[in-house]
Amino acid sequence: MFHLLDIIGTMAFAMSGALTAMSKKLDPFGVFIIAFVTAVGGGTLRDVMIGRTPVGWMQDLTYVYVIILGFILTILFRKKLDKLRTSLALFDTIGLGVFTLIGIQKGIDYQLHPVICIALGTMTACFGGVIRDILCTEIPVIFREEIYATICILGGIVFFILRKMNLENDVLYLITSLVIIAVRLMAVKYKWHLSPIEHKK
Amino acid sequence: MFHLLDIIGTMAFAMSGALTAMSKKLDPFGVFIIAFVTAVGGGTLRDVMIGRTPVGWMQDLTYVYVIILGFILTILFRKKLDKLRTSLALFDTIGLGVFTLIGIQKGIDYQLHPVICIALGTMTACFGGVIRDILCTEIPVIFREEIYATICILGGIVFFILRKMNLENDVLYLITSLVIIAVRLMAVKYKWHLSPIEHKK
Amino acid sequence: MFHLLDIIGTMAFAMSGALTAMSKKLDPFGVFIIAFVTAVGGGTLRDVMIGRTPVGWMQDLTYVYVIILGFILTILFRKKLDKLRTSLALFDTIGLGVFTLIGIQKGIDYQLHPVICIALGTMTACFGGVIRDILCTEIPVIFREEIYATICILGGIVFFILRKMNLENDVLYLITSLVIIAVRLMAVKYKWHLSPIEHKK
Repeated sequence: MFHLLDIIGTMAFAMSGALTAMSKKLDPFGVFIIAFVTAVGGGTLRDVMIGRTPVGWMQDLTYVYVIILGFILTILFRKKLDKLRTSLALFDTIGLGVFTLIGIQKGIDYQLHPVICIALGTMTACFGGVIRDILCTEIPVIFREEIYATICILGGIVFFILRKMNLENDVLYLITSLVIIAVRLMAVKYKWHLSPIEHKK
Repeated sequence: MFHLLDIIGTMAFAMSGALTAMSKKLDPFGVFIIAFVTAVGGGTLRDVMIGRTPVGWMQDLTYVYVIILGFILTILFRKKLDKLRTSLALFDTIGLGVFTLIGIQKGIDYQLHPVICIALGTMTACFGGVIRDILCTEIPVIFREEIYATICILGGIVFFILRKMNLENDVLYLITSLVIIAVRLMAVKYKWHLSPIEHKK
Repeated sequence: MFHLLDIIGTMAFAMSGALTAMSKKLDPFGVFIIAFVTAVGGGTLRDVMIGRTPVGWMQDLTYVYVIILGFILTILFRKKLDKLRTSLALFDTIGLGVFTLIGIQKGIDYQLHPVICIALGTMTACFGGVIRDILCTEIPVIFREEIYATICILGGIVFFILRKMNLENDVLYLITSLVIIAVRLMAVKYKWHLSPIEHKK
């Protein structure tokens, strides 16, 4: 089940990357790379920083195939995807929750401090998008307006509070991802955002 | 012989990086870093992702010296390099072929799947240029118009098809690099390129 | 003593990153990430390239706490920091000296060639700022005008010359960091800079 959600999240991230790249008028190779990087960039950065190499997607080809599929689907159905925007946003949000948990779990596997685990969860979920934006020479959207990373951090805190209570891993995972997904959906619905810090030079 | 081609490719990549950086009016340190990154950035990214550390150029100073030489030559002869553009493009193309093979070979050494090996080859040959463009805040040229990475992927496929036929390593290397070099030269000559995917918002 | 200077440098780098991010109108999360990356980005890049993983700040939470403190102080006192500009520049310069030494020492620990050690020192001191600028989609300031990295290289050369003379480690560290700090302060005072290389297309 969890693995299925991971796949859905990967596909959604790849498709959102491909859509961004197409709006930038990149060629098919550029679109593919941006799709790839959006989907696995965060996890790759995490793996490289904790020394888990060769990085994840090199050892399990599922991700590569899912991204190729997402890339092809996006190109084929690019004119119809606008109507599916709500579904895509939902899948993207599932990815946010699942990727945060995967990152946290990797930190625990490497016996790192909870603060670092939360950082790894946030990195896994959000930094694919950061690399995507940098490759498109835009200031990363999550640094500007989207309340996105903050939700991952919040989810991570919930995770470690619940963990202290000795809940079972399955329950822990379920509640944390539901919290992340629910808060994110509310953030989108009610247009929550972080304001820039006012600072006159 | 192969090592000599590697050196020629490194020099050509460093010089192309230095030229790009000078056109951006960077100072000498900036020009040097861009030359360096263009030459070894792809291989560094590959090494970091597969866990081959300290990365290549830290263990064999030849690359550093070749890049320093390329940097100095570019600055000294910057006004004459325009006339040598054809030679430079040829050397650059040799680099493309050789770097792709080196990347594929590293993947095989780490017992990775052929698909991943081809990705590593393409990364080795093309991502120095990607990092160069990002450091100059431009959308990477290989994502936009240049048919460049696609040729590396094609070369990688040829490599693994021939490998199935149990050809000797030397022959395998020779044919693959000739294929990459020949296709690239034709692509330049006949101005082949990938078109952006049409996508109205 | 040395550790204290490391902390001061980290704090100064975090604050300078936060100030840059605020001038770009990033939201608080963006400001925090830029502060973080400016402070530890260079060392992270170094650790990843030499294979020292999990990277430094994941193993010693002091850095994370110092950066959080620097982030909060910058936000609280953002209107008064202009008056403290001189002190901030001094602390930043201390960071430059200390970080260069830390990077060189890591290279020595990994038994790398002096040339590579100097590269690692420069990377540690300067590439946090490079990543900061890239995340803000600006061409890195140290590639354009600031004489900054050149001073780290100079300091590194001084370090290895003195080391040949069998000086004690403490003396070696002290002299090198004083050289870097003194030259940098003079460079700021007398507005030394590297000129772009003239190059007409």
